[in-house]
Amino acid sequence: MESEESALAQAGEFGFIARLTERLDQGAGVRLGPGDDAAVVAAPDRNVVASTDMLVEGRHFRRDWSTGLDVGHKAAAANLADIAAMGGKGTALLVGLCVPDDMPMGWAEDLADGLTAEAARVGASVVGGDTVAGPVLTVAVTALGDLQGREAVTRAGAKPGDVLAVAGRLGWSAAGTTILSRGFRSPGALVNAHRRPEVPYPAGPVGAVLGATAMIDVSDGLLADLGHIAGQSGVAIDVDRSSVEIPTQMRDAGQALGVDPYEWVLTGGEDHALVATFPPDVLLGPDWTVIGRVDSGSGVTVDGLPYQGQLGWDHGRA
Amino acid sequence: MESEESALAQAGEFGFIARLTERLDQGAGVRLGPGDDAAVVAAPDRNVVASTDMLVEGRHFRRDWSTGLDVGHKAAAANLADIAAMGGKGTALLVGLCVPDDMPMGWAEDLADGLTAEAARVGASVVGGDTVAGPVLTVAVTALGDLQGREAVTRAGAKPGDVLAVAGRLGWSAAGTTILSRGFRSPGALVNAHRRPEVPYPAGPVGAVLGATAMIDVSDGLLADLGHIAGQSGVAIDVDRSSVEIPTQMRDAGQALGVDPYEWVLTGGEDHALVATFPPDVLLGPDWTVIGRVDSGSGVTVDGLPYQGQLGWDHGRA
Repeated sequence: MESEESALAQAGEFGFIARLTERLDQGAGVRLGPGDDAAVVAAPDRNVVASTDMLVEGRHFRRDWSTGLDVGHKAAAANLADIAAMGGKGTALLVGLCVPDDMPMGWAEDLADGLTAEAARVGASVVGGDTVAGPVLTVAVTALGDLQGREAVTRAGAKPGDVLAVAGRLGWSAAGTTILSRGFRSPGALVNAHRRPEVPYPAGPVGAVLGATAMIDVSDGLLADLGHIAGQSGVAIDVDRSSVEIPTQMRDAGQALGVDPYEWVLTGGEDHALVATFPPDVLLGPDWTVIGRVDSGSGVTVDGLPYQGQLGWDHGRA
Repeated sequence: MESEESALAQAGEFGFIARLTERLDQGAGVRLGPGDDAAVVAAPDRNVVASTDMLVEGRHFRRDWSTGLDVGHKAAAANLADIAAMGGKGTALLVGLCVPDDMPMGWAEDLADGLTAEAARVGASVVGGDTVAGPVLTVAVTALGDLQGREAVTRAGAKPGDVLAVAGRLGWSAAGTTILSRGFRSPGALVNAHRRPEVPYPAGPVGAVLGATAMIDVSDGLLADLGHIAGQSGVAIDVDRSSVEIPTQMRDAGQALGVDPYEWVLTGGEDHALVATFPPDVLLGPDWTVIGRVDSGSGVTVDGLPYQGQLGWDHGRA
């Protein structure tokens, strides 16, 4: 059992890093892992995809709601989903960690294990990082990825006539956050979705192969993120509400808490579902479900009308 | 003139990011810059070098000592020096920024300009980032780089008989920090060295071409960082103190402040000088100055003896 003394004070910076580093398995694409000035990672495509995200305690997670393992999974997922949304496959993570005095060693080890386990879902490794002492627990993750010879799928290629499709879950994390913020801890499936998103990683490269014209991961909310595709592609996007399934647990939770579950589904972020547009004649596999269409014009509508709820879900990013 | 209202409150997250993004010039190696889920950067070598660092206000910089421009330069330099220390050339930066309420828009714009200007010194671009609201101003930078077909120069290849050489400045930043902490603002050359390190970037790839057997950048202090080479290479390293030059300004400042300038030179970090070991018959160019030698054994000595001062310079990294 770890003492609750500060992890850094207990082990010193180099001891702390050594204890975390020994937990990090290195995959085949890692030419040089942690322990030097920089890591070296294979980029077989001659291009590297890269994305970075910062998670701040009290804004993006709470230690009384989530374990270190949860936060590790969540921080890795937020970045690896960005790689998937380009049609890429994650290869490596780099992690900056700001450690306050009240963070025990065990929490940091759990965080490392969570990052490693989530990275392993796509065959990626934690290859490096930096640890600093500071007043607020902050996790900054950068993900690297490989396009496997394909063009990146941007937000800018949607065309009128395209279909809109989703892979993964919508509104689960938002429902879980509402439940936790009301002081409840169940249903577990929704609460756990706040703690650890289930990102449909393979759907990203599959979507690219299927000819996705635009793609994004849902981090700010379905309608807000579709707004990015609509804006950058210069098109209008309409969501067919009847094609978006509301799971029974979410419907029940909404009823109990007095929340319209479509609010979670349409505006809740952080599940990191992938949404993409495809040419109308595409044959989508089981990963992808059509939920709307692309038209000429601008803006995002639901069943042809502007959505009246809160547009986008403010998950603390100002 | 910017109002002192919070930059994020003033512009909103997307407006804030848009205002910063428009300041970021994109170089030739950038396939896709800011504004999508992830950036795409050329990796012509089929490998990518990557390093990450976090700078926390109050630990690594102070807004009353350094401008936003300074902090941008410093944050970029700390990471790009790591790329150089592998023998690589920086290609891209990704920046995570945690913005407190009291950070004006102008400071963030200066930060972006500083990051961009420092990156431009090696031909790199700021290709992406993340902005979050939070209580403590934190800058997390990840640098990517290219090895240009060479093997990475690690810390582990030094051999008995090798010479030890340095490129760049030693002790300047530490002297500047001491001066500032005593309430002085001059001499400017030393104070500015704290604000913006002058990293000898080209010496990294040049050192690799010259056959460097091990290399590191001095971020924690010369003796501390040589300790990493000695430990990971399984060798002893001796520094010849007479070969390490003390600039006149530093000698004078040391006398005025009652500090032995060798303390700054041997234990001061954050100048991001490069130190490397080379085979004894190497012909070094003007970038590199021999300051010692590698022997069998272990540990780091100065003129054959253990150094009695503080080993390594605690620049707040716990």
